[in-house]
Formats: sequence, structure tokens, C-alpha cells
Amino acid sequence: MEAIGGIAGVLTTSAFVPQVVRTWRTRSARDFSLGLLWLLVLGNCLWLTYGALTGSAALVAANVVTVPLTLYLLGMKLRQG
Amino acid sequence: MEAIGGIAGVLTTSAFVPQVVRTWRTRSARDFSLGLLWLLVLGNCLWLTYGALTGSAALVAANVVTVPLTLYLLGMKLRQG
Repeated sequence: MEAIGGIAGVLTTSAFVPQVVRTWRTRSARDFSLGLLWLLVLGNCLWLTYGALTGSAALVAANVVTVPLTLYLLGMKLRQG
Repeated sequence: MEAIGGIAGVLTTSAFVPQVVRTWRTRSARDFSLGLLWLLVLGNCLWLTYGALTGSAALVAANVVTVPLTLYLLGMKLRQG
């Protein structure tokens, strides 16, 4: 059962890696909604805080990865409008 | 402390709502990476399974919302290539 949670966490965390690779190459983030990116950045920062406060290494590790990736996408979107 | 986790969950779950609204309007999902969308759909399905198996109402509720939203984005991306 814990394996299912572990695999789920790895999948949803690593999901943003191919996206950053694509956006880095195409330099285009127009199809993204600004709402999606702001909510993901803020939400992931709160998950990171919650993980740190509750001592959850898995939550901290996952969000240490996703916060910079989603911040990069938000930065690209803000530059392009 | 639990409030921080709750707010984090609401933010990362509701993040996909403005994205689906945008993609519905623009009919364009080209800037999305196929890898992002497949990994999110699979990962969220596993989170849903994990939530059901562990009796976590919050996990089930969050992923009952995000699975169809990310599936819609994946469908739009697959239609456009």
C-alpha cells in the first residue's frame, strides 16, 4: 500500500521535469494559465512548509524539486504574458 | 499546522481549474509536454487509489477533482500532437 503512495509521489513530482525541458527548448509558455502556475507555486510552497513542520521527508523532498520547476514555468509565463 | 496542509491541498487541487478554462477557450495545448500530462494523470490515479486504500477522504476528494481535469488536458494535447 505504501508502495502505491511512493510511486504516486515519484510520478507527480517528476512530471514537471519533461515540461521544463520542453519549455526551455521552445521558450514558449503561452498555453499555460497564469492561475495554474501561481496556485501550483504557492500550493507547493505550503506543502513544503507543512512537510517541514510535520517532519515528512517525502513531502519536503517532493516539493524541494517541484517548487523551482514550477517557479521557472511561472517566470517564463510572466515574461511572455 | 493542519490548516497549512489543508490550504496547500486546496491550492494545488484548484490550480487546474483556471488551466482547463483557458485551454477550453483557446483550444490550444501545444506548450504542454506530453510527459507532464501522462505523469500527472497516472500519478493522480495512483494518489486516488492510495487515498481510497488508506481511507483518506482529503486525498480522494482532491484527486477526484484533478484526474478528470488533467485527463481533459491530455486529450487536448493528444488531438493536437
